Amino acid sequence: MPKIIVEVMPKVDLLDPAGKSVNNALHRTGHKDITGVRIGKRIELHFERTITDADIAEAHKIAENFLSNQVIEDVVAVTVEN
Amino acid sequence: MPKIIVEVMPKVDLLDPAGKSVNNALHRTGHKDITGVRIGKRIELHFERTITDADIAEAHKIAENFLSNQVIEDVVAVTVEN
Repeated sequence: MPKIIVEVMPKVDLLDPAGKSVNNALHRTGHKDITGVRIGKRIELHFERTITDADIAEAHKIAENFLSNQVIEDVVAVTVEN
Repeated sequence: MPKIIVEVMPKVDLLDPAGKSVNNALHRTGHKDITGVRIGKRIELHFERTITDADIAEAHKIAENFLSNQVIEDVVAVTVEN
């Protein structure tokens, strides 16, 4: 199924308590080479037809205005899987 | 910064109420060509050195046993960004 994948991450300056907890847990279980963990979102937009350039442009707008909160999050990728 | 990116999505059979809500909202705002929305997680594991094949193998294990709940979620990708 054709889909557009939007990836959203918390801004670098922002604390990510869930990511920090996972990082601590990984350290406790011996994964000391992992120096940080950040948890964001991966959102799939499904289509039942081929995805056009217009869809991708629209997806960028949806990603910035609707799927992410620009105060605390960045859209890091918008990719197509046909 | 070198990082391993783990992507986790709810299993296909599983309801995703948040995704459904976003889908409904997109339909209300005119995006009727989007036939479905699924919301998953994007987890970054940061390293302060080059990532090795052993790290990637370990990240697969961490992804399956720790970052996802295999009853309700699938690990859809483990990728490296050096």
